[in-house]
Parts: sequence; C-alpha cells; structure tokens
Amino acid sequence: MPTKTSKNPNCSLLQAHRCLYKPVLPEILKKGPCFVKVKTGKATQSVADQATVKKMFPNTYGMPEVTFIKGSNPAVGKKTVKAAVVLSGGQAPGGHNVIAGLLDGLKKANPKNKLYGFLGGPSGILDAQWKEITPKLMENYRNTGGFDLIQSGRTKIESEEQLAKALDTLKKYKVNALIIVGGDDSNTNAGVLAEYFKQQGADICVIGVPKTIDGDLKNDKIETSFGFDTATKIYAEMVGNICRDVNSARKYWHFIRLMGRSASHITLEVAHETHPNVTLVGEEVLAKKMTLKQIIDYLAGIIAARAKQGKNFGVVLVPEGLIEFIPEMKALISALNDLLADHEAELAKMDSITEKKEFIISKLPAKLAALMKSLPAGIASQLMLDRDPHGNVQVSLIETEKLLVEMLRTRLAEMKKADKYNGKFSAIMHFFGYEGRCGVPSTFDANYTYALGYNAAALALNGCSGYLSSVRKLTRKPQQWECGGVPLTMMMNIERRKGKEKPVIRKALVELTGEPFKQFAKKRDLWAMSEAYLFPGPIQYFGPAEVTDMITYTLRFERGGKK
Amino acid sequence: MPTKTSKNPNCSLLQAHRCLYKPVLPEILKKGPCFVKVKTGKATQSVADQATVKKMFPNTYGMPEVTFIKGSNPAVGKKTVKAAVVLSGGQAPGGHNVIAGLLDGLKKANPKNKLYGFLGGPSGILDAQWKEITPKLMENYRNTGGFDLIQSGRTKIESEEQLAKALDTLKKYKVNALIIVGGDDSNTNAGVLAEYFKQQGADICVIGVPKTIDGDLKNDKIETSFGFDTATKIYAEMVGNICRDVNSARKYWHFIRLMGRSASHITLEVAHETHPNVTLVGEEVLAKKMTLKQIIDYLAGIIAARAKQGKNFGVVLVPEGLIEFIPEMKALISALNDLLADHEAELAKMDSITEKKEFIISKLPAKLAALMKSLPAGIASQLMLDRDPHGNVQVSLIETEKLLVEMLRTRLAEMKKADKYNGKFSAIMHFFGYEGRCGVPSTFDANYTYALGYNAAALALNGCSGYLSSVRKLTRKPQQWECGGVPLTMMMNIERRKGKEKPVIRKALVELTGEPFKQFAKKRDLWAMSEAYLFPGPIQYFGPAEVTDMITYTLRFERGGKK
Repeated sequence: MPTKTSKNPNCSLLQAHRCLYKPVLPEILKKGPCFVKVKTGKATQSVADQATVKKMFPNTYGMPEVTFIKGSNPAVGKKTVKAAVVLSGGQAPGGHNVIAGLLDGLKKANPKNKLYGFLGGPSGILDAQWKEITPKLMENYRNTGGFDLIQSGRTKIESEEQLAKALDTLKKYKVNALIIVGGDDSNTNAGVLAEYFKQQGADICVIGVPKTIDGDLKNDKIETSFGFDTATKIYAEMVGNICRDVNSARKYWHFIRLMGRSASHITLEVAHETHPNVTLVGEEVLAKKMTLKQIIDYLAGIIAARAKQGKNFGVVLVPEGLIEFIPEMKALISALNDLLADHEAELAKMDSITEKKEFIISKLPAKLAALMKSLPAGIASQLMLDRDPHGNVQVSLIETEKLLVEMLRTRLAEMKKADKYNGKFSAIMHFFGYEGRCGVPSTFDANYTYALGYNAAALALNGCSGYLSSVRKLTRKPQQWECGGVPLTMMMNIERRKGKEKPVIRKALVELTGEPFKQFAKKRDLWAMSEAYLFPGPIQYFGPAEVTDMITYTLRFERGGKK
Repeated sequence: MPTKTSKNPNCSLLQAHRCLYKPVLPEILKKGPCFVKVKTGKATQSVADQATVKKMFPNTYGMPEVTFIKGSNPAVGKKTVKAAVVLSGGQAPGGHNVIAGLLDGLKKANPKNKLYGFLGGPSGILDAQWKEITPKLMENYRNTGGFDLIQSGRTKIESEEQLAKALDTLKKYKVNALIIVGGDDSNTNAGVLAEYFKQQGADICVIGVPKTIDGDLKNDKIETSFGFDTATKIYAEMVGNICRDVNSARKYWHFIRLMGRSASHITLEVAHETHPNVTLVGEEVLAKKMTLKQIIDYLAGIIAARAKQGKNFGVVLVPEGLIEFIPEMKALISALNDLLADHEAELAKMDSITEKKEFIISKLPAKLAALMKSLPAGIASQLMLDRDPHGNVQVSLIETEKLLVEMLRTRLAEMKKADKYNGKFSAIMHFFGYEGRCGVPSTFDANYTYALGYNAAALALNGCSGYLSSVRKLTRKPQQWECGGVPLTMMMNIERRKGKEKPVIRKALVELTGEPFKQFAKKRDLWAMSEAYLFPGPIQYFGPAEVTDMITYTLRFERGGKK
C-alpha cells in the first residue's frame, strides 16, 4: 500500500491509491482479445439522409453492428500490431483509462504489440508528434483524470491535404490501427478517416471512442459517453454544497451556470442529484419557443411565490447553452452577425457604444430591436463588441446567469411597484465547467473507460474499421456489460456547417418525452417551493458499493427498464 | 447499512452512510463529563493592551487555562442543565457535529439535561426563537455539512439593551449555559456576554467554539478553527482538477480567487495541496508594501518566462482579500470613502461616469490619482458606484481576479511591443467560496467538531464561563487529543472599530516567519516554472486511513514538530 513516503512525492495520496485500482473488466473480455469472436448483426443505415451518407461513405456505409461473443480467436494474437491513440477535443475524466485499457488489451493479445500516443490531439498525427505508451509510463496515469499523458487538441483532419498527410504519418511509422477518442465531431472525423484509408487501400483500422462530459453523444448502442458520470457528480457535489449553504444562510439566490452548450443533459442530471428550486432546460425552452421575457417571468414567479412564504433564497441551474435555445435570441445573434459584417466600416467610425447600439437597433427588424433594447447594457455591448476572429458574436463568453439576474432585478422591481412582490433579492452567481473535466474518474467511469479502451483493442485486432467502441447494458454490474462496435456511419446525418452540407454524427439532445425529463417535470413544482435539496457529497472510491458504484440518474431513467 | 430504499428518500446515499459514522472521541472524554476533572494552569493575560482589557472585563480577565484530566466528578451529573447553542456568522463544515457532541456530552452526564438551539444566529436569542435539539432530531444531521438545523446569523449582541434582552430570554427559559459557535467576532461577543452575566450575577455559563473556514482564529491553544480542513480540501479538489485541465489543454491561464478576506491561510493551504504556478499571499504583499504595479510585474514576469518555454498556461491563486492588503489600494479605498461622502451632492448632479471619475481624480492626492487612472474602467467605476448602505466601497464585490487579468493584458501588450514577451495570454477566472462552506465535513472536522462540542459540554457543566472550547495536539490521533478551555479574554486586544476602541480577539494572519509560508517560499520558484501540480481529488470517508485522515499542511507545518 502507498504511504506518505511513497516513491513519488509529486503524487497525491489518493492518486497513489487510485493508481493501484484494477478496473473491473466485462466478463467477455477477461481472457483477452484471443478469446472473443465477432458476431455481426444486421446491416445498418444512417439515422437520416441515408442516400447522401451512403454516397459519401461508399466503403464504410451499411456495415453491420458487431458484438463480441466467447470463442477462440488465436489469429488476432499472431499478428504484431502497432496501434496509435489520439485524444481529441475537451477533456473528460477517464481518458487515461481508455489508453490503459487499449494498452492492456493489445499486450494481452500479443506482448509485442505496441501503442503510440499522438501528442496534442489530431495535429499530432499531421505533425508526426508522438510517444510510445509503455506499461511503465502508463503506471502513474491509471485511473487518473486529465489528458496530460498525451494532451488533446481541436484540429480537424478534413482537407484532402490533411487526409493525405495523416496517411503519410501512419504509413511512415507503420501504424495499423488508429484509435480516436472524442465527441461527435471527432468521431465524425474518425468515420471520414476510416473511409479515406479504405479508399486509398491502406490497411489501417480506425476506431472511435465516445467521449464527452456533455453526454450528447449517445444512442441505443452508446448508452452514455464517458466522463459524463464523473463531471456531473463533481458539479452535483458543488451544487449540493451550495444548496446546503442556501438553506443555512437563507438570504441569497444562487444562479449556477453549468457547462454543456449544445445540450442540457448535465444540468438535468445535476438537478436530479440535488433538487434545486429552478432548473432551466434548453431543449424545453426551444420546444415551447419561449421568449427571454417568458423565462424571466417564470423565474420571477417562483421567486415571488417563495418570498411570500418568507423564503428569499433558492438555487437556479442554468445550462451554458441556454441563450442559443431561445429562438428570438438565436435570431438576434444571427441578425447581429450579419449586421456587424455588413456595416463594419460605418460602425468602426462611431466612437460611443450608445451610438453603435442606436445604429444597430435602427437596422434590426422591430421585434429584434425591442429585444435588443430590453437587454441589460453590459450584455448588449458584449453582443456588439466581443467578436471571434470570424466576426461572430462570442456566445460562449456570454454570462447567461448575469443576464438573467440583471433582468430579474428589473422585473422584480416592477413587480414590487405593482404590489406583486415584497421580498429581497440578493443573487450570487457561479459557473462550473473546467473543474469537472479533469476530475479523478468515478469508479463507473474508471471501469467504463478501461472497458472502452480494451474493447477498442479487440475491435482493432479484428479489423473493424469505422466502428465506435460500444460497451453496453451499463445499468448492470461491469462484469455483465456487453461489448462490441457500432458503425460510425450509422450515427450520421447531413447538416449544414458553414454553408456546406456535411455528414456529422447527430447530437443527442434532451428529449422531452424521455424519462430523465419526465421525472424532472413531475417533481419540479415541489422542488420550486420546498427545500427538497439533496447533498450528494464528494465522489467516493472506497466503502459501500452502493455509494462508490452509483450510476447517473440519466442512465438509470433511460436504461433502467431495459435490462 | 443504508440501502437505496433507506427510510429517507430525501437523503443522499453518502449522507445516509455518514449519519451512521461515530466520531472518535479523545480518550479523556470517553467516559463522559462525570469522569474528568478540571486542572487549572497559570493565570493568563490578554495578548496585548492588558490594562485596558482587564478594565473592560473585571470579572473574567486573567482566568487560568483549563485542561481536563481523568478523575471522578460526580457533581456535574447531579444537576440538571438546560444548555442552548447558537451558530453565528458564516457556515463552516462541522457545525452540526458541534451540536451533536454537545448533546451527547450533556446527555451522558445526565439524561435529563436538555439542549436548545437558538434559530438564525444571535438574533434568535434576542427574539427568543429556538427549538429543542432532541436525539431524534439530531439523527439526520450527524456528520453533515451546513448549519440548516438551526441556521445562522450575523447579529451582534452589543448594546446594553441587547445584552439585557439576551439575559431576559435566557432567564425566561431557565438556560444555564450558552454555547456560541463562531469566529473571532462572535467569540469576542461570547466574552462580552460572559462578563455581562457575571456582572449581573446571573449564573449562566458562556462557552465559545472556534469556527471559521478562514483559519484566522487560532493561537497556541487553539491549533485550528473547525471547517478550515474541509473547506480547503474542497477548494483543493477543484484547484487540482483545474491544474490537471490546464496541463492537458495547455492554452489557458486560470486565475482562481479563494475565499478568505482577512487572512490568506486558505490560499496558502490550497497552494501546498496543489502546487499552482503562482500564489499571491496578502500578508506578504502587505509586509513588502507591494504596489499593484509590482504585483502585475511579478505575474507578468512569470507569464513571460513560461511563454519563453512555450508554456502559455498556468494557474494563479488569489486570496479574496488581496486588494485590502495592497497599501496603496487600501489608501485609495479609504480616500474614496471620504471623497464620496464629502462631495455627495456634487457627484449626484453629474450624469456620466467619465465626469465623476475626472472630478474624483482631481480631488485625490497625486499618487492615488495616478493609481486610480491606472485601473481598468470597470473596476474604477465599481469603486465609485458600488457602495454599501454606509456609503463605503464594497470591497467584497471587487473581482480581484478580473482586475489582475485586465491589467495583465495591458502589461503583456506593452511587453510584447518592447519584445519582452512573445506568448499568448488567454485567461479564465474563478471564485471558489460558497461551495466550501457547507461541504460534508472531512473525517478530521467530523471528529474535531464532535470533540469541541462534547468538550464544551464538559466546560459548561464545570461552570467554566468565558472560555473557548480547546481541543489540541491535533497532529496526533483523535484518541490522544487533549481537551480543555482557553479564557476568551486571553486572546483579546484593543482595536479601533468604527472610530471606537473595542476589545476584540486578534485575528491570526499568515506569518511570514511561520513554517507554512517558509515552506511555500522555498518551493514557489520551482512551482512557477514547472508543472509540479498535485491532484488531491475529492475528500474520502472510507478506505485507507492515510487518505481519509489526512490533516492540513498548515497544521502539519505549524504543529508537526510539537508533539
């Protein structure tokens, strides 16, 4: 057992202990890749736009789903394989364990197999920057958070030139299998690479691994992306602590924005774990075509109702992407993007923000002009001034929680004048995001990612190029998890990106007919008016299994019935 | 053992398990208050201003320190006592366990003893708002975070009228002992009440319990205040996660402001737990009389040096109270407070912020005017506009991390022009505070607070009025902790508060000659240029003792040598 004098003084005690944890492998993978065989299912179709996707992926479209079953498969141990792994996009807890599973799976099949890690994301492939992942190097990274072993990056390998360059690197270093760990975009890219390599007659197997704390990369066969479990538990720890603080101090409303721009899964999961008074769900706002004013009225209504009971306190959860789910705000941002581009020269001549604002308002359609006028000054300037290098509004910089609070202050003051509110409104704001992306993976994520990596090794050794590593039946114990692969093309549809039709993996948004939302909708009125807060506390790695092995509400609600 | 169907569905699984935890009592207290006797030490003196403090506390000044030793003391079990507890000031993890220890200690001495809890802080005494704390009620609050059992408040009982009212309430409900759980101010108040009750001939024992996550209520006999251990571990979990994220993404500088306005203990402790690249310590800034410009230069120097190595990323810790430690900023704030009061009418007539700013700058002494001019516009307006009800600058609202980042942007741009910096500077900012105040207490804090409460019961039963509950030798195992009391007057000195000389408990600031700072000073240059980050991870309650029972670096450095 590690002790305070353990050999690495630059390692926390918890990390020293976690490095010794042996993830639980699904029974089917336990004997290694030489003892599983591929069972193929029916041919598959893309989720939409079948003809177009098929045309774009002539070599990898329609492949069958794959499940691993017991069986002797000595062939996979006879060849010597060089695999390479790349981490793509934002960090998610468990990335290192994907690599550990991959390494152990490869070595189990044939100790001569090697694993390389491309450095700094996909650009590492283009620039041929890599290091070998040896068992020795892996030691200190097992069951740890972060992507620091090989880092990550956001480069996309898209152009013909990039594709050719990637192929060059892989050929030069005799890499037979490329494992891409990423979200929807990165896995779309994995599908593109798999298709390209087949077209070029290169025998390089490409496997994807579903990563994203946002939880928006999932479907029937990918029950959850890794990292969602840990990140939501970390946010829930903090939100639960704040709920307890709120209920102790009883004088503040806390507005907490949670990471997750494209989907509200994180916010919804944290709501189930902590029972805050109000939770905004972007997908509901969109479905109901809610205006900003309606959202403010909804919030003000609950704040006033609680004030009537003498409760001038509460907790509000806001998904990071809320603004883009509000149809009129999306329209305004889009109109601003056009306006600012069209009138760049005129606007540049104006000195004051007021002048610019008036000019812009005069050019907007009446409804959007009224909306722009209703926004707090700070947010309005931010919309006009903070542009990304393409000249677009930087939506990710907008502090939605501040927007809501400022507008609530105005609304509540109006209500006070009209004798419809007689409370005090003091607000404290938070944004939780970065602190969840690199946390120590929960036991679930440690097991799941290790299995995803080990399973990816088995897929690669069986030449299943163009597949996403799929470990499923996740509400069962890890020993009983099923393993296999899902064709990447099956998850694709066609979307317009920057004016072009692109095949992309469709993001899984919160479904209003799904159990996670329905269960929330049933309880939210109760949570609004009471203090039904739950305090989940920090993630535990030792102790009672029901505490250490808890899975998310989302998974339980979505898969609980489907044993 | 609790299960998913445990009787309380509104309780997290971790909480259900933690409620069953039995804190480890110091050996000396194990048989209960009837088996310990009071051993008195030498008469004490206040830390300064002895004559004045003595004059103000004629009945409670100079009392001896008290230590509990083994011995039969049946008398304390024969009387029936009504004790009342009040939580005062900001939340700190472990408050509920103080109450649990108090309850158990009282009941162990005599099952007929009762414990009341005053509601909402000291105002609960004035308004006679209370509830009885029964063992049944206590059940679900054992080892939990928060103060929600009886809430807290910030009312001070100071005026003659308030003192009399408090005495009235206590007499009316026949309370024999009042236990005040609070920080330096609240415990000063406890000392005042103890003195007042003696003056009035009322036989009501007042005991203080040292609470504050800030860690600034300590001395030779109070080795740490409760809550500091848990709060710093929660912040360290988050900061460690961000360090890992920084080292994975390698493109952002994260600026993290940590709670703790009067002292930088929290920031220093978190630095030891995570090894960030830069840590600002308020007390050092003050001692070296650093200017804002010098701080910016120091930060810019490290940012530029790292950029030279291709490292455009890092983590900076900033104590919440930094601004008030910068002598020139303190002078500016004080000058602004006066100016704005003196010229209220004139300023009210001015429309634009620019006009106000120019007016104010014209009235400031040259040095402060230059400083005011150098501040980013947002911060300058905040200093002029955000006033508390007394018309003073609201220092606690100043987002110091934003001030630093904005000034760094300017400074780094200048350095770039002068060819002294060639990196990229993208900053992300955080404030961690509220999420640490109500966390589930660490095993240390759970044991320590339970012991503090149990010990307070023993002090109360022995009539030790005017004492602070003291549990010491905290680097040993809890069984070996020593228990007793420290006279509250011993910790006092005279300070000017709102123009009046007041006796107050002296805050313990970070000492530059103390081990925690010296150890940090030794390592900070290494931490600045490398990525020596530690990732402590979440607090563990089960598993290896070296992980669950870890104490703070602060305690280890300060007390490690003093077995």
